[in-house]
Amino acid sequence: MCAYTGHEVTFWLRSEGSIERTKPKIERYSSLMIADLEKAKTLVGNPMGAFMYPRGLIRDWNGLTAEDIDKLIEKGKENLKNNVAIEFDMAKAVKGADIVIESMSEDPKAKIGVYEAMKDLLDENTILCTNSSTMLPSTFAEYTGRPDRYCALHFANTIWKNNTAEVMGHPGTDPKVYDKVVEFADEINMIPLQLHKEQPGYILNSMLVPFLLAAQALWANEVADPHTIDRTWELATSAPAGPFKILDIIGLETCYNINQMNLDANIEGTTTYKINKLVKAIFDVLKMSATLERGISQRRKN
Amino acid sequence: MCAYTGHEVTFWLRSEGSIERTKPKIERYSSLMIADLEKAKTLVGNPMGAFMYPRGLIRDWNGLTAEDIDKLIEKGKENLKNNVAIEFDMAKAVKGADIVIESMSEDPKAKIGVYEAMKDLLDENTILCTNSSTMLPSTFAEYTGRPDRYCALHFANTIWKNNTAEVMGHPGTDPKVYDKVVEFADEINMIPLQLHKEQPGYILNSMLVPFLLAAQALWANEVADPHTIDRTWELATSAPAGPFKILDIIGLETCYNINQMNLDANIEGTTTYKINKLVKAIFDVLKMSATLERGISQRRKN
Repeated sequence: MCAYTGHEVTFWLRSEGSIERTKPKIERYSSLMIADLEKAKTLVGNPMGAFMYPRGLIRDWNGLTAEDIDKLIEKGKENLKNNVAIEFDMAKAVKGADIVIESMSEDPKAKIGVYEAMKDLLDENTILCTNSSTMLPSTFAEYTGRPDRYCALHFANTIWKNNTAEVMGHPGTDPKVYDKVVEFADEINMIPLQLHKEQPGYILNSMLVPFLLAAQALWANEVADPHTIDRTWELATSAPAGPFKILDIIGLETCYNINQMNLDANIEGTTTYKINKLVKAIFDVLKMSATLERGISQRRKN
Repeated sequence: MCAYTGHEVTFWLRSEGSIERTKPKIERYSSLMIADLEKAKTLVGNPMGAFMYPRGLIRDWNGLTAEDIDKLIEKGKENLKNNVAIEFDMAKAVKGADIVIESMSEDPKAKIGVYEAMKDLLDENTILCTNSSTMLPSTFAEYTGRPDRYCALHFANTIWKNNTAEVMGHPGTDPKVYDKVVEFADEINMIPLQLHKEQPGYILNSMLVPFLLAAQALWANEVADPHTIDRTWELATSAPAGPFKILDIIGLETCYNINQMNLDANIEGTTTYKINKLVKAIFDVLKMSATLERGISQRRKN
C-alpha cells in the first residue's frame, strides 16, 4: 500500500536467502491488487459496487468510471514496480526513512535484537512502528532508543480491501508522533482507527476473541451446530458472516493458537479444552487429506 | 404471526383491566405488519429488496410482484381481524388448543402460579411452550403437569421481520414434541433455530452478551470511542451495525440490566461497574431530557 500510494519502500531482509520468499510475495500481492482493480471495473454501475470495491485501492468510488480505474491500474503498476527496493544492509535500508515498520514474527527476543541493532542507524526524526498483533509497544519501547517516536501501526489481512490501520501508542509516545502516524495511515489509503490506551488485541481482536469463543463454546458443548449458530447471528444482526464463517476466513490454525492462549486450554473438561480438541481433530483431517491429495497428484505426475 | 398465518389465536388475560393494554397492542402490531407489506411493494425490482423484505410476512420473495403483495395484504388483514380472540376464563381460553405459549414477565413465582392453575385445564395433547428469554424450561417442567410436552419457543423482537424462533427442550422433553414445535415454528413463518441442550441466553444472547460486554469494556476503559469501535467492527466484518448500534437497538435500560446480571457490576473498580456507571449516566440524561420535553409540550398545550 505504501508503494501503491507513491511512497518509496525499502524492504530490509536479514539474509539473501530470504529473497526467494520475499520476491514472489511482493509480486503476488502486486498482481492481486491489480486484479482487484480489474474486477472493480465490472462493478461500475452496480448498486452493490459501493459495498464491494477495494477501498484501499480506490479512495473515492463515487462517480468513478472504468476509464478512471484504468488510469489507477496504470499508475498502480508503475508505483508497485518503481517504488519497491530490497536491501540487506540495515544501515542503507533505514537511512533517510520517514517511517520504519517492524513486521517480524511474534518473537520478543528477535524483535528486541533488531531494535537494538537498528537504534543507532536510524535518522534523528525517523518514526518507528511495530505491526505486532499480540504484543504491546511498551514491552519494547526502552530498546528502540526513541520511545517517544515509537508506537504500533497494525494492519489487517488483505489491506487493499480491508483498509484499516489501528494506531496505538504506549504511555511514552509523543502525541505529535502519534498524530503523524495517523496522518501517514491516511496517506497510504488506510482508515486510521485510533486507540487512546494500550490494549492487547487492539480494538478488533478484543471483541472478536470473546465473540468467537462464545460461538465455539455453543458448538463444543453440543448446544447447536455451527450452521445454526451462524444462521442465528446472521438473521439477528443482518451480518453477512456468522462466527464460523469468520473462523473459516481466519483459519483453523490461527483459531487453535488463539484458543491455546487461554489458560483453560490444557485443563481437561474445560470448554476451551473441548473446543480445541474439536478444532485440532478437524485440522488434522484437513491436513491429512491435503497430504493425500499431494501424494496422488505426485503419483499422477510420475 | 400465528393469526397472520391463519391459525386461530386466543389471548388469555388475567383480568379485564389488561384489555386496555392488550387491545391497542394487537392493533398496533397488526398495522405495523400491514405497513411493512405496503413498504415491501416499493422494494419489488430493487436488487436490495431480497435483503430488506419482511421475511416473516413473505415466505418467498423470488419473482414476487406488487399484485402478489396486495393479495398478501388482503389475506393478512382478514386473518389478523378474524383469528384473534381475547378471553378471561382460562379454561375456555386453553380448551382445544394445539399449543399454548406462556409469555409472561420474567417472574418465576408468577409463571409457576399460572402453570399450576393451567395444568388440569389443558387438553391431553396440548403442547405447552414458554417464551422466556432468560429462564430455562427445566426450572418449570415439574409444575406443568406435562414435562414431556413442554419446551421453550423463544421469539425475537419485530418477528415479522426478524423471523427467528429458538426451540429449546429440557432433558424431559419428548423428542417428538420438540419436532412438532419446530414444525409449528415453520408453519407460522419463523426460521426454527434448534438447540439440542438447555442454554441460558439461547444461541443469540450467548454470543451477543460477551461481544457487547467486550465493546463496552473498550469504551469504559477509554481505549477508544464508540464510533471508532463500531467502525472497526463494521469495516473488518462487513456487518451493517457495530456493537454500539446494536446496543442502541436493544435499548440502554435492557443493556444496563444485562450488565447488572454480572456479579462484578456492583464492585467498584471493575470494568462492568465502570460500564454501567457510564450507561446509567447517559440513560439518566436521556430520561431527564425526555421529561423536560414532555414538560415543555405540556406547557405549550396549556
